This record gives sequence, C-alpha cells and structure tokens, in this order.
Amino acid sequence: MSNLPIGFRAAGVAAGIKKAAGALDVALIASNTSCKAAAVFTSNKVKAACVLRGKNQIAANATDFRAVLINAGCANAVTGDLGVRNAEDSAAAVAAALGLETAAQVMTMSTGVIGVQLPMDKLRHGILLAAQAVTESGFEDASRAIMTTDTVPKTSTGVFTSGGKAYMITGMAKGSGMIHPNMATMLSLIMTDADVSATRLRLALRRAADRSFNSISVDGDTSTNDTLLVLANGASEARPSEADFELALTQICSDLARQVARDGEGATKLITIRVTGAHTEAMARKVGRSIAVSPLVKTAFYGEDANWGRILCAAGYSGENVDQTKSSLWFGGIHVLDRGTPTDYSEEAATLALKPREVAIQLDLGLGTAESTVWTCDMSHEYITINGKYRS
Amino acid sequence: MSNLPIGFRAAGVAAGIKKAAGALDVALIASNTSCKAAAVFTSNKVKAACVLRGKNQIAANATDFRAVLINAGCANAVTGDLGVRNAEDSAAAVAAALGLETAAQVMTMSTGVIGVQLPMDKLRHGILLAAQAVTESGFEDASRAIMTTDTVPKTSTGVFTSGGKAYMITGMAKGSGMIHPNMATMLSLIMTDADVSATRLRLALRRAADRSFNSISVDGDTSTNDTLLVLANGASEARPSEADFELALTQICSDLARQVARDGEGATKLITIRVTGAHTEAMARKVGRSIAVSPLVKTAFYGEDANWGRILCAAGYSGENVDQTKSSLWFGGIHVLDRGTPTDYSEEAATLALKPREVAIQLDLGLGTAESTVWTCDMSHEYITINGKYRS
Repeated sequence: MSNLPIGFRAAGVAAGIKKAAGALDVALIASNTSCKAAAVFTSNKVKAACVLRGKNQIAANATDFRAVLINAGCANAVTGDLGVRNAEDSAAAVAAALGLETAAQVMTMSTGVIGVQLPMDKLRHGILLAAQAVTESGFEDASRAIMTTDTVPKTSTGVFTSGGKAYMITGMAKGSGMIHPNMATMLSLIMTDADVSATRLRLALRRAADRSFNSISVDGDTSTNDTLLVLANGASEARPSEADFELALTQICSDLARQVARDGEGATKLITIRVTGAHTEAMARKVGRSIAVSPLVKTAFYGEDANWGRILCAAGYSGENVDQTKSSLWFGGIHVLDRGTPTDYSEEAATLALKPREVAIQLDLGLGTAESTVWTCDMSHEYITINGKYRS
Repeated sequence: MSNLPIGFRAAGVAAGIKKAAGALDVALIASNTSCKAAAVFTSNKVKAACVLRGKNQIAANATDFRAVLINAGCANAVTGDLGVRNAEDSAAAVAAALGLETAAQVMTMSTGVIGVQLPMDKLRHGILLAAQAVTESGFEDASRAIMTTDTVPKTSTGVFTSGGKAYMITGMAKGSGMIHPNMATMLSLIMTDADVSATRLRLALRRAADRSFNSISVDGDTSTNDTLLVLANGASEARPSEADFELALTQICSDLARQVARDGEGATKLITIRVTGAHTEAMARKVGRSIAVSPLVKTAFYGEDANWGRILCAAGYSGENVDQTKSSLWFGGIHVLDRGTPTDYSEEAATLALKPREVAIQLDLGLGTAESTVWTCDMSHEYITINGKYRS
C-alpha cells in the first residue's frame, strides 16, 4: 500500500451514502500546512456542482489549500442551485471540523449517480467522523472510500531525489465507467511534499495529464465530474527542477491511469495502443483515442478475435489525415499490415497473441516521427450487466 | 415486400462468399435505360476499394449508370492495390454479363470483413448467375443478399404524384454494426423512375441523407464502406418539383434509416432522441448524436434503468455549448428535469416508460427554436456476443 508524503493525513469512513451497509463512502485528506494546488477539470459543458465550485476556487487561490473532501455514491451533478449550495456547505463543514480558517481552503469532489441531491445529513455526519479519524496511516481507507464500480483501489507512490533531498509523490484515483477524460480522469488526488510553486505545479500537471489520464478511455463517456488535483506542501524541503518534477509527476499519473484502464467496468484485458509515425504527438494521441473508444475494436479483443480491420477503420474516422497506403500494423506482436497491404501472417499466431491479459498493438502511420501511447480495456458482457443496472 | 420502379430489375444469388452454405451474398440491380445518379460516401479516411472507385466514377459520370453490384461477406477494404483492381474487374464482369458498353456504367459496393481480398472466382461466378437471374420481381432476393449481421432485410417504397403522373421511389439498405454514418449509411441503394436531373438528385440526396442516415447511430463506428446511391431512370415521365422530390426521397431514406437503427446488432429497443430548443438544426443533431452514441445511455435503456443523468452528461460533452441551467428533459414521456433542476417525478413511472420496444426522449436545450431527431438502439449482451466473434 502507498504511503502519504510528510505532513498529510487521511481517512475513509462509512456515512451511509452508498447503498451497501457499512461501505466506506467519504474520504478526507488534510495537510498540516498550506499547500500549493493545481487542478484540471472535465471539459464536459455539464459540470457537477463541485467542479463549478472547484474551478472558481483554484482560480482565486492556488496557494493555500488545506483539505480535500471526496464522497462516492452521489455525483452532485445536474442538481441545480441546491447542489451548488450543498457543495459549499460541505466545504464549510470540513473547515469547521478541522478548525481551518475558511471553506476556501477545502476542495470537494463527488462521484456517483447524476441528478440526485447529496444527502447532507449523512454527509455532515461522515465529515465529523472523518475529521476525527484522519491519520498518517489512513490513505488506504481513503482510497477505498472513493470507489464506485471500481473493483480495486488505485494508488501510486514514488520517492524521488533532488539536490540530495528526497521527496515523495503519492496519488489515488477512482474510475471504472464514464471514463474518457478530456482534461482529467474521473477523480484523482495527488499529494507531494516537494516544494513547488503554484505556477510550476500547474504547468507540470497539464503536461502529465495529457500523457496519462488524457490517454486512457474505458467507454468514451467524458464524465461531468472529472477532477485531477495535485497538492504540494513543501514539507520535504526538496526543490526539484522543472523537468525532474514533471517526469516524476508523469510517472505517478501514468501508473494511476493504467490502473484505471485495467479496472474498466467488466474489463478482462488491458490494451496498450502505441501509435507511431505521426506528424505530431497530438495527432498520434487522437488516432490512438479513436481506436481506444471503438466498441467494435474492444469487443474483438474481448472475443480474442484478430479482426484487425476494425483498428484501421477506427483510425480512419479519427478526424486525422491517416493515409491507409502508408499505414502498418502490428497486432499483438504480429505484423498484419504493411503499408496498406495485408501480410501473409498466420491467423493462428494472431489469435494466440490475443490470449494474454495484457495486449499491445502498434499502428505506424508512416507519416512522421511523433508517437503517443493510449491505454484502454476490452468491452465484455459484464460491462453491459454493470451499466444496465448501475443505480440498483 | 417493396416493388421496383419501372425499368429496374434485380437479383440476389448465392456465390459462396458468405460462410453459411447457400446464403445469398451477391445482389445485382440493372436498369433497362440510362440513369442519373447521385451518391454520398463514408467520411472515413480509410476507404474501401469500391468507395475509392465509386467516388471517381460519380464525379466523372453522373448521367449514364446502368447497374449496381453489391456483395456481402467481404468489405474489400484495406486490401491494397489488388483490392482496387478487383473492384474494377468486378464492374467489368458485370458490364460484360449484361452486355453494357463499359464498366463505368456499373457501381460496385462491398460489405463484410475488412482486410480480406475478394474471392474473385466465386464473385465472377455469382455475377454470371445474377445477370441471368435479374427480373422485375427479384428485389426481395437482392435485399437479402446484402445482409451481414442484419436480422431482417430493410426496404422501403412509396408512390408519389407530380402533375398528374405517378412515380415510385424504392430503396434497400443494410447495416447493423459499424453504424455511425457521417455521409451515408453502410450501404443503401435507392431507385426511382422519376425524371430528375443529376444536379437536383445530388442536392436532394444530400439533404435527405442528413435527416435520415446521418441521424442514426448503432455503435459510433463510421464504416470504411458507407455508400448511399440513388438512381433515377425517368421511366415514369413524372417531373416532380424540387421540394416535392426532396420530401419524397427523405421519407424513403428516413424509413430505411429507422429500420437500420431498430435492427442494430443485439438491439432490443428503438430509441428516438428529439433535441429541441437549439440554436441551429446542426447543433441539435450534434447533441442528439452524442447521446445516441454513449454506451452508458444505451446500456441504461437496455437495463430499463431510468438513469437520465447520463443523457445530460452525453449532451454536455457533445462539443456544443449546452447550458445545463436551461436544459429540460422528458424521459420516456416523464418530465424529469426542468431547466437544470430535477423535478419531483415518480421513479416508478419513469421505469414503466422504458418498458416498450420503442422509447422516445426529448431534450430541450432552452436556447433557440431549432430541432433535430436522431435514432439509435440500446446496447445489449448480444451486441458483445455478436462482435466478439463476428468473423467466425
């Protein structure tokens, strides 16, 4: 299990918001001192109340964050004016319970069903419980409390050094369905004790997000609640260089993002899609994401059917100027297409290449030298079962 | 069963291209006289050999078409130079078998697995059989020969009058998976004995396609082979006005498009999504298509779970400037959202509204007066089963 960086405490408690009795559903993270913060939010025009609040908050104040409240079981999205008041009231309740100066030092995030109001009595009770429970060893409970259809908690931690001083980055993420981040993933919180300015934190997060959470897809649905927040409290006194910190942050974000893709609703396989030979990295990522979203590609992987034409088809409708006469494809290690012409590959070998739980494909566009890697999962009967009855 | 307009003949024969023994897989349509033609093709950058050929052909000659060859079981897409030669050779074989002047009078279409070469010996044999079999009563066989995962043939016919003269429009379409037309649907051929110029045919087809085939989605996958072709031989001597003909053509196209959505792979429900209160019809259509593609929306309909938040979520990431505080939603006839705030609706009534095999939803964006209607189907376990093993 991952550890918390210096100066952070966490708790996960059961407040009765999830239907299952006793399930952890409220996470609280507190920092002993002020944190610099940076965040990226969903690009969905329909934004949850907590996202609307969080965007304003981080724009007004990115240098004095003290706590993050996350509830699962209710997304507080499409909930009108009452939803906005409830988000504000939750932050105020956290500030009061932790003895902070103001609700502006508290970020809130929610995940769960859309169009339902937060059960405020239960949430207030959960906040009181969590504020009493926060501890340096409470991270595992917190990471479990933010799960919805996730089957496992997702955490990642790393220790890095800079100028002889060590610093830690630890993150957690949740997400299994409605995963097609366009600015961030469903919910992720990253904490570090490195000493990084708010501006450098923002720049590093944006680049790290593009190469991690913005490079995964489960079902093509960009959620109303996507939030990726990073907090830096400087407690380690390590001041990493811009490049080093960006690399470290990208490593933690990528690890979390792959965990989210691997735990996609009903998934049986993690699929790594490497697109090479593109004009730009952005072009490669757009082609990769188009392949990662295609239900026909994802069901073929589930069925272990080497139906690689669907991959070319999805690349073709990505909106990028793909040239089929220059495209080559390696499908689970087997070279099946050479500059637009099918090779004389063995069908048996191609089918065998699809058996493992992790499968990699490479599409070379034959146009340039840029590349990008995107992660997704297969689409199974279980995905339908989970989503046909999600609310019950 | 639909009838053919005056002067058209059709046949559907078994050439052994499909795996199932004796299955009809080659359709041939012939006109006794020259036809004006118009077509719209897939916007996918990866285009089948027959689409590449068809685009050139219609650009060079839209006034002298005599026949259309359609095979199922092999898409002739991503097949390199050999695929292009095979498309040309098939057209030449049809011209020879029917005694036409040139292969340029013959359009070909293919549907089936991508990345596999046409079995030319079988296809040539099928062409000879079909050329002998074409008859005024062969339309039903033709409409069955173009099916792949379709469970029923899709045909539509209408008799219209203009200046005291009657004319007929008859069409067939195929498509069940890889359906997310961006210029046209998978494959559709429309025939009329009206007397319409090639220019007017082209304009009418473009507008009719937007309101029919471009307004349906099964799985968000835009195929490599989408082709919608209309042929007019003028045999009825009726010369409908521009507006009348467009309306008539739209009626036939919409009927076929709805049949395609209803027969989506594994579908149990036809879902009609009406988006109103938009600034423009194009905006309404884009929002509607975003909802129609969402796996989370489609699985909720399958599970008869009134999880309407997913509809707002999908509208929000459509790319259009949706304002949640102005959006209202009727979900299977139940008013669940009023300008951004959930109403006090009965959960029981909302669930009941989802039981029928045809369900309608209306999303009012509260911004303007334009609207559009989009059709889709639900996503079921059967969709996964069909697509996990499509090639076997």
